[in-house]
Amino acid sequence: MEAQVWPLEPRFFRQGFRAIRPALEELRQEVKARGWWLPALPRPWGMGLSLPEFARLSEELGKSPLGHYIFNTQAPDIGNMELLLKQGTPEQKERFLKPLVAGEIRSAFAMTEPEHAGSNPVWLSTRAALEGEEWVIHGHKWYTTGFEGSEFVIVMCITDPDHPNPYARASQILVPSDAPGLIQVRKIAVMGEVGEDWASHAELRFEGVRVPRENLLGERGKGFAIAQERLGPGRIHHGMRWVGIAQRALELTCAYAAARELSPGKPLASRQAVQHLIADTQAEVHAARLMVLDAAEKVERLGTEGARVEISAIKYFVAGVLQRAVDRAIQVHGGLGLSDDTPLAYFYRHERAARIYDGADEVHKTVVARALLKGYGAEVSL
Amino acid sequence: MEAQVWPLEPRFFRQGFRAIRPALEELRQEVKARGWWLPALPRPWGMGLSLPEFARLSEELGKSPLGHYIFNTQAPDIGNMELLLKQGTPEQKERFLKPLVAGEIRSAFAMTEPEHAGSNPVWLSTRAALEGEEWVIHGHKWYTTGFEGSEFVIVMCITDPDHPNPYARASQILVPSDAPGLIQVRKIAVMGEVGEDWASHAELRFEGVRVPRENLLGERGKGFAIAQERLGPGRIHHGMRWVGIAQRALELTCAYAAARELSPGKPLASRQAVQHLIADTQAEVHAARLMVLDAAEKVERLGTEGARVEISAIKYFVAGVLQRAVDRAIQVHGGLGLSDDTPLAYFYRHERAARIYDGADEVHKTVVARALLKGYGAEVSL
Amino acid sequence: MEAQVWPLEPRFFRQGFRAIRPALEELRQEVKARGWWLPALPRPWGMGLSLPEFARLSEELGKSPLGHYIFNTQAPDIGNMELLLKQGTPEQKERFLKPLVAGEIRSAFAMTEPEHAGSNPVWLSTRAALEGEEWVIHGHKWYTTGFEGSEFVIVMCITDPDHPNPYARASQILVPSDAPGLIQVRKIAVMGEVGEDWASHAELRFEGVRVPRENLLGERGKGFAIAQERLGPGRIHHGMRWVGIAQRALELTCAYAAARELSPGKPLASRQAVQHLIADTQAEVHAARLMVLDAAEKVERLGTEGARVEISAIKYFVAGVLQRAVDRAIQVHGGLGLSDDTPLAYFYRHERAARIYDGADEVHKTVVARALLKGYGAEVSL
Amino acid sequence: MEAQVWPLEPRFFRQGFRAIRPALEELRQEVKARGWWLPALPRPWGMGLSLPEFARLSEELGKSPLGHYIFNTQAPDIGNMELLLKQGTPEQKERFLKPLVAGEIRSAFAMTEPEHAGSNPVWLSTRAALEGEEWVIHGHKWYTTGFEGSEFVIVMCITDPDHPNPYARASQILVPSDAPGLIQVRKIAVMGEVGEDWASHAELRFEGVRVPRENLLGERGKGFAIAQERLGPGRIHHGMRWVGIAQRALELTCAYAAARELSPGKPLASRQAVQHLIADTQAEVHAARLMVLDAAEKVERLGTEGARVEISAIKYFVAGVLQRAVDRAIQVHGGLGLSDDTPLAYFYRHERAARIYDGADEVHKTVVARALLKGYGAEVSL
Repeated sequence: MEAQVWPLEPRFFRQGFRAIRPALEELRQEVKARGWWLPALPRPWGMGLSLPEFARLSEELGKSPLGHYIFNTQAPDIGNMELLLKQGTPEQKERFLKPLVAGEIRSAFAMTEPEHAGSNPVWLSTRAALEGEEWVIHGHKWYTTGFEGSEFVIVMCITDPDHPNPYARASQILVPSDAPGLIQVRKIAVMGEVGEDWASHAELRFEGVRVPRENLLGERGKGFAIAQERLGPGRIHHGMRWVGIAQRALELTCAYAAARELSPGKPLASRQAVQHLIADTQAEVHAARLMVLDAAEKVERLGTEGARVEISAIKYFVAGVLQRAVDRAIQVHGGLGLSDDTPLAYFYRHERAARIYDGADEVHKTVVARALLKGYGAEVSL
Repeated sequence: MEAQVWPLEPRFFRQGFRAIRPALEELRQEVKARGWWLPALPRPWGMGLSLPEFARLSEELGKSPLGHYIFNTQAPDIGNMELLLKQGTPEQKERFLKPLVAGEIRSAFAMTEPEHAGSNPVWLSTRAALEGEEWVIHGHKWYTTGFEGSEFVIVMCITDPDHPNPYARASQILVPSDAPGLIQVRKIAVMGEVGEDWASHAELRFEGVRVPRENLLGERGKGFAIAQERLGPGRIHHGMRWVGIAQRALELTCAYAAARELSPGKPLASRQAVQHLIADTQAEVHAARLMVLDAAEKVERLGTEGARVEISAIKYFVAGVLQRAVDRAIQVHGGLGLSDDTPLAYFYRHERAARIYDGADEVHKTVVARALLKGYGAEVSL
Repeated sequence: MEAQVWPLEPRFFRQGFRAIRPALEELRQEVKARGWWLPALPRPWGMGLSLPEFARLSEELGKSPLGHYIFNTQAPDIGNMELLLKQGTPEQKERFLKPLVAGEIRSAFAMTEPEHAGSNPVWLSTRAALEGEEWVIHGHKWYTTGFEGSEFVIVMCITDPDHPNPYARASQILVPSDAPGLIQVRKIAVMGEVGEDWASHAELRFEGVRVPRENLLGERGKGFAIAQERLGPGRIHHGMRWVGIAQRALELTCAYAAARELSPGKPLASRQAVQHLIADTQAEVHAARLMVLDAAEKVERLGTEGARVEISAIKYFVAGVLQRAVDRAIQVHGGLGLSDDTPLAYFYRHERAARIYDGADEVHKTVVARALLKGYGAEVSL
Repeated sequence: MEAQVWPLEPRFFRQGFRAIRPALEELRQEVKARGWWLPALPRPWGMGLSLPEFARLSEELGKSPLGHYIFNTQAPDIGNMELLLKQGTPEQKERFLKPLVAGEIRSAFAMTEPEHAGSNPVWLSTRAALEGEEWVIHGHKWYTTGFEGSEFVIVMCITDPDHPNPYARASQILVPSDAPGLIQVRKIAVMGEVGEDWASHAELRFEGVRVPRENLLGERGKGFAIAQERLGPGRIHHGMRWVGIAQRALELTCAYAAARELSPGKPLASRQAVQHLIADTQAEVHAARLMVLDAAEKVERLGTEGARVEISAIKYFVAGVLQRAVDRAIQVHGGLGLSDDTPLAYFYRHERAARIYDGADEVHKTVVARALLKGYGAEVSL
């Protein structure tokens, strides 16, 4: 990472993904050659690391915005692979999973809708209706990460609007990204950057998009249950990546504080305010790391459902640690921290989203409180 | 502001300053026609508002990143005007101040150096030596805001390196931006954006730049004293602009929380977590506003030196309020807050610098503590 | 204050109110003699200071837990005086107000009930029914401050349980503290101290307490409206007292940091961490002061109702500043801060209640948010 | 704990240690009978639990201020036992350790001095000089916890004031608590309570106290090294006890929020603000628990020195979690949280010291930063 990946960052920050794509593809080949490809997936698809093992590795990869891509574990592809692995038919695996695992194609996941609050996941307006042997999809999605450059997108649609249980109304459907009627309205500028390819986010319209009946992924009406299954380990992945970023911010801070002089011979590190920011981040990052490892171990042992409190807790606890760690690092770096000469400004901008995506902090806090309060006889609605 | 300026923001965020320059120039003409031009400068240069009066106005202007430009009170020009007004010779006023006041040209201010910590202002390496009737300048500066498109730049230089008092070694010199030997190394990407013109920051090299002796601004050796005089009211200006941004973030939050539905008929505003973020920001913004007005009134009454504690306190207190207000607003807006569809993401990126420029939070905290502790007999060094 | 009141504090902390009562009474006589008695009440009852004037004075008095008592402006007596002044009949004023104003007696105010959350003020179970010419009261109250040693207590009772408007069901009734059936269950230990007299809190039972019909204070059914009228300026009083405490904590911190040596000749004040705590408190205390003064001025100009947002905002903003200021001061003082050798430990314990009484932080935040959101068309229930 | 210890708390809070001493002694006998006595000490002195095992147990014991006493693992006795075990001569073990282990006597540890900042441990004025076969001690100590009722006190004294290494100047000496010349100046009221016996803190003067030469504990000049050895695991003990308190505060909060009604049928737990406080505490307490276990495991594996960063980090991280957890719990409990009807007010008062004793937060933050920065070539002094 340090020798081959970090040096690519400055060009990535200044010129974007495509400028360094050839270099990244070369590194991907090297990773494959070393047998490190897809560490998070079970054999024979990947290295077969356990979730806690992958969590430790993921911290290292996460220290750079480029790390996971090189190992083909970037979101949303890794989540889609896990989904296809568990829910896909043999034909779906052959067509969609295989090239994805090989790193030959990319994919996207379309869930969030601009008109509806993410904190009420059952409130969707995208609908898919069976007409003969085809699903016909109408709807509006945004923040579809990595749509640009993708081969297919997994779309969360209401397929059974009249089911009495609102959690049983949705299904997931595989849609080729070039399907007629699937329109990219725009790439959304996130923190001022529209980004490219895997590092971009699309707003999409589905205007009568038609896909064959067999593109249903998993059981009909199980869309939310499947999404939860996907999001659980995904939050562990995010968590450990965030720990990596916070740890990188800490290391950059220490290095800068030791090297930068306030006056000849007197390093910035001599300031108590700087020391205490470092100490706060060290403690918090280590706490975050231990929480993610603990949650990973519980997911491995008890499944996503059994580790629900731990998964939700890392979502807001670790995202908070991440934001503070990067913020403090920038403060210590002064003007330099605002520039593209370090990865801090990139992290500052792009990881603000950590407290929002996959369920905002507030949603996860309520999930945790609800689980605890149930033990005391109180029913709390979300 | 609301009818004519805010509507220009989306294009500014997406296409930059130049794309909307004609519209801005039109608004500037309208402001001039109404007699509102340069409200902060004394008559006949401007409207002659008192500092507290301007502070109130500045909050309104500050609600948009475009507001101050339209009234010709944008940094660093307004600071340079105040400086020239107080320190300039009649010739300097004629040549530099007059077109600046007219809004025909722009200017820059070069103080910070990449090699030296801003918290030790006397440690500069840029030097100007008199050779005959010319100052010859060698040095390296960065974060020279608005250099692109400027006619001249005021440069802080060591002119008397052997003076026993380190605070008496520097002077300020007026340098035409197109002077031979003055090289723009790059525009620095700040939070991922290189920006344009007035909204950009340059890294500069001075390689034997020559200007006439009479380009010295103010007395020789008084560079730091003059800079302090410039920075004092400048911090009030920043402070009130920050209050404007925080207030705008609050208003956007209220509007969004009232309009956005969690489920049909149930607004986001019904969430207690949202209500409490709103209440926290309301209290903090109002506290910040009162502090800035109080400091402005003290500066007016006692001068910059007499209001030193108040000025430093608003620097870190208000910058903190600003950062939290924008951060909370983004959290309430969710994905929308990360996009360019509101000004929040712009404020989030570009106002992170508020806790760094013109003296980092940590420097101002020490200034305040030092002043208080002096009253108890303790001498604290910066 | 500094010469005559602060020196009494150590005995107060160690031996309680009664031990210093004679000294306090002497000071009260001196205050009367100087014409400073009851600065907050209108002439001829008191000095006739405006609310902003009193706010400034109140900061000074509030620096010691003994200050307000000496000027006869201690809670709950001052609130009861204001209430009697506005709502009392000539007979009530003669019997209850006159000796209270003279400082000859003390009084209490019984509102909170142990069985019902304070955040739902209309939910009370204490009832008063007219039987012939007498009110007969049954109920249970706690946190009745200063009941011990009082001559009478103003009791909030449900008198009209069937009124369709829940806010029109309660009335306030004057009850002699020695009325048969009025039982002090216990003095509640608050932060480990049961306290004495004016500095104590009682749990009371009303078991068929009978008082004459004319002991009704104000109009029947207006109990809540009257209580709000009482609480509004009361929150200003608290706010300014809290500013005084926080300011005292700051001054103690500066004095200690300047005097205490880390090693021979090197004061604690040389530590940047100490400096920054001082600077944070300085900024926050000043912000709090300005907010209280601003709210006082608005109450004076617009009445309690017109300053509702400001009053609620100071309740949680200033209480937070107070808690942090005292906490930081203790941290700087180390072991000494935990002892009774400074007033800090007393403030730490007894002012934790500031975020709870007269409406918890959370209630006031919702009040503020509700008022703001109304302007955007959202109706938020408390 | 829940069945037999917690019910003793109300009497402890109201009447003090002595009132419940008989009940506690009975429980101690039961603990002994069950073979649970002294879980933290190696066999045959205690149960022989590993440090991580004891850490888990200690959380349970720490949930009550009485828990550790019942298992004879209360501070400062447990630390003194560990010290005597490692450093004591056979005679010292026979005389001092044996009855301590048996729970027949108690002991104290005198280190802190009122005149000298705890953050500079080498700056002590208490001196012990050998005169013939006796140490003669002169000095002034305070915050000597549990001196009242103790049989002996371990005293940190300067024995070699001229040693060039300031860390080699002190030694530890065993002094009978009734030695002539050892004067208890006062019991210091901590947070308003002077306390009793084991739950009290003394200010002591040593005026020519004489003890035999063989009362030196460990090597001469090794006082600081030995103290560090004592403090390392002691901080783990404190850390886990604090986790227990924070966890108890969380459980009390959940129980109260579930049971308390805002209005008939609507529990306090329905408030989002309450839910989010619960969720924050849950995440932080779990993070704290994992950090303490991780540090305990490192101490076990690498020794105190090898786990220095982890030990210091838990000192400030966990103490902060503790303070916030108790503070939030009080806020949710409202008035009840201020009373003695729950243990929260006791914890709030008495655990404020956690951020001060055994090295203030600020000292440990510098220790952590120094260790990290060393890896980057920066030498930071304490």
